[in-house]
Amino acid sequence: MQTKITLNESDIPTQWYNIIPDLPEPPPPVLHPGTHQPVGPDDLAPLFPMALILQEVSQESYVDIPGEVLDVYKMWRPTPMFRAHRLEKALDTPARIYYKYEGVSPAGSHKPNTAVPQAFYNSQEGVKKLTTETGAGQWGSALALACALFGLECEVWQVAASFDLKPYRKIMMETWGATVHSSPSDLTSAGRAILEADPDSPGSLGIAISEAIEVAAQDPDIRYSLGSVLNHVLMHQTVIGEEALKQMALIDEQPDLLVGCTGGGSNFGGLSFPFLREKMAGNMDPTVRCVEPAACPSLTKGEYRYDFGDTAGMAPMVKMHTLGHDFVPEPIHAGGLRYHGMSPLVSHIYELGLVEAEAIHQVECFEAGVLFARTEGILPAPEPTHAIAAAIREANRCKESGEEKVILTALCGHGHFDLASYGAYLAGELVDYDYPDEAVAAAMERVPVVAD
Amino acid sequence: MQTKITLNESDIPTQWYNIIPDLPEPPPPVLHPGTHQPVGPDDLAPLFPMALILQEVSQESYVDIPGEVLDVYKMWRPTPMFRAHRLEKALDTPARIYYKYEGVSPAGSHKPNTAVPQAFYNSQEGVKKLTTETGAGQWGSALALACALFGLECEVWQVAASFDLKPYRKIMMETWGATVHSSPSDLTSAGRAILEADPDSPGSLGIAISEAIEVAAQDPDIRYSLGSVLNHVLMHQTVIGEEALKQMALIDEQPDLLVGCTGGGSNFGGLSFPFLREKMAGNMDPTVRCVEPAACPSLTKGEYRYDFGDTAGMAPMVKMHTLGHDFVPEPIHAGGLRYHGMSPLVSHIYELGLVEAEAIHQVECFEAGVLFARTEGILPAPEPTHAIAAAIREANRCKESGEEKVILTALCGHGHFDLASYGAYLAGELVDYDYPDEAVAAAMERVPVVAD
Repeated sequence: MQTKITLNESDIPTQWYNIIPDLPEPPPPVLHPGTHQPVGPDDLAPLFPMALILQEVSQESYVDIPGEVLDVYKMWRPTPMFRAHRLEKALDTPARIYYKYEGVSPAGSHKPNTAVPQAFYNSQEGVKKLTTETGAGQWGSALALACALFGLECEVWQVAASFDLKPYRKIMMETWGATVHSSPSDLTSAGRAILEADPDSPGSLGIAISEAIEVAAQDPDIRYSLGSVLNHVLMHQTVIGEEALKQMALIDEQPDLLVGCTGGGSNFGGLSFPFLREKMAGNMDPTVRCVEPAACPSLTKGEYRYDFGDTAGMAPMVKMHTLGHDFVPEPIHAGGLRYHGMSPLVSHIYELGLVEAEAIHQVECFEAGVLFARTEGILPAPEPTHAIAAAIREANRCKESGEEKVILTALCGHGHFDLASYGAYLAGELVDYDYPDEAVAAAMERVPVVAD
Repeated sequence: MQTKITLNESDIPTQWYNIIPDLPEPPPPVLHPGTHQPVGPDDLAPLFPMALILQEVSQESYVDIPGEVLDVYKMWRPTPMFRAHRLEKALDTPARIYYKYEGVSPAGSHKPNTAVPQAFYNSQEGVKKLTTETGAGQWGSALALACALFGLECEVWQVAASFDLKPYRKIMMETWGATVHSSPSDLTSAGRAILEADPDSPGSLGIAISEAIEVAAQDPDIRYSLGSVLNHVLMHQTVIGEEALKQMALIDEQPDLLVGCTGGGSNFGGLSFPFLREKMAGNMDPTVRCVEPAACPSLTKGEYRYDFGDTAGMAPMVKMHTLGHDFVPEPIHAGGLRYHGMSPLVSHIYELGLVEAEAIHQVECFEAGVLFARTEGILPAPEPTHAIAAAIREANRCKESGEEKVILTALCGHGHFDLASYGAYLAGELVDYDYPDEAVAAAMERVPVVAD
């Protein structure tokens, strides 16, 4: 009875998959935040290296992975896929549940899949330092690691509330050589403006993005790096899905259902895009489902329209499912899913009807996470507990119907830095938040109207 | 250029290796703590299931791994072996450095390799609950996981200082369903006696062992479980070395040097015993080196004589390298290496001249750990940084001599729960401790003299 489906080093994909050319319609263009006109490569050059800008707008179906990036991928890729025998037994379900586990990366999540090429291309173009924002610290950790491997400096603005409450992620970044600031900081005009208004500001991802962008834009040796949302980020993550396709083929399985959690969309896109390619080509026909937190339900409740990627409105405008760029989600423990918008590419694919979505409250997710830990051993991060909860819902439906569905999910990271959240759950202190319709309605009022 | 040497599920060893029959002399017997006479299986029956007692004294070279245990091993085994290309480059050494990585287990260390069979055999014999002690929490986590998988209750006494300072390991154990007490506790007479004398006692591993043993000995449904030191524990860990032998063979390499950190000896024994078998058979001739903390140097400074396994003198007496059963090591950050004695089997093999030993101070170890993290990505636990530091010493000697030595080490766990220690190192707050000759001399005075 096989549990772990293992690939060899030679099975690591040598190309990333770009889903855009295969879609029936191209995604809408990115607009300049000031002029509302489509942006060109030059507009983005102060923030990103040209190689990544070209990937962002690429019409090629496949992009070669550089050898230097593959050499780093080998440190943890191919990642294992597991059959969840013990979880199935606990659920008494006829469904067969598989999970692709990205927590084996040194940073403990899928994030290094894109941090590594981003650091590589920047180093190739002579960039000396990358800036970025981080909330709980998963993305900052991944970029700190990638910068250490390519000899880049790394400067991270961490949301003040996390900086104070979760010191271990900060030390992890520092161990890899990064410099970490609490955001808002007095190092930027954006940060100083916030601090003047509120010296005790707990910060937000939006403010941290503004600080990281401001520092990068002012110095030609510095660029900015984003860990989700953008096309090239999702493309880098397709190594997950390409490996998963090979692993399913090895054991002669085809998924009936794919489920992935969605925050900015990179984990979901990484798993699902290669399967969507096969679905569009008629080679398989899985249902593909996004799972989002009920407290921040951009796909199931958000409006599909142009909005800013950041709170301050400095970043380009993208057409996406949004709750409003200055909407502040409730403090759910899945910090990686607390983003006001959804990746424009995932939003577009959702509009095309290629994927569906559901929203789940956090208590059900942690309940699923604890059951998963006690059966499968691995302690999942709060973000993928959303996907696990959705898989369990489906497995329970299979128990009712008797269907032997094959369910595949992405376990995008472990929860070693989220034990305070598990502690709160075990102590019965976790609460569910109602859908914040008034806050969202107010935030949507502040989104500028842009003609499509 | 291969980085990760991967095995398939079918390569997981199906037998544990028992080195004892292959040794030129048998190890000395275990003695009853009161009578100083050799103990028999019945003496140990209140604490351990008969299957493990028989393994402890087995004269068979190989013991079959039960299918139920293999099914759990498949959750993370075979573990990867890595070539440390980036570390070698940073050191500019002609040496080739390999490491076998056990941090991929759900508990993050090699400990589940023995926790799982221990839980299995206990469940087979109808035991309902296991008790144990834990310091920083690596062993307690592993046993909590194993008990969850075999439907056993698990009760852990965690040293009070760790219980208060490192709450995340406790929550991890609780997430897997264990009950965790701060030790000394008022649940045992041993604990109450300590608390009466000192209500604010920070506890010790010795006290926690006494509490766990006391509870197990009083109830036929409860047994006690130990995470290192004993023969059967080291034997369970030989899956590490058996896999490493296969991985070295896959790439046509033979180690010139094996280095492993030694606390209770289970990680070192697990890696090295299969290689020592090949060495004794004349198939290879590696140097095999134990690395211990300079603050707790049982092999390099301790006396080889009979002593108690626990502080209170309730546990059987074993012949081992010891610093005295009530010697309290300085608070070094490698909590897993703060044991007053060395596994009797490793001690015996050291006396036979099959292995050598060196002691290293912790600042050098953390320096090695940070270099390792910044080159190899993985953030090591403080314990294996001792082995990494020793490997780096050897690689630097190779740089001087030009020798292309093949160095193999065991990276027995990640440091995700040790970031406070890395923070202290990065802040320059870590200190080295001198060899505590006076404290050891005083402790050795209190060891009863037993005729060999």
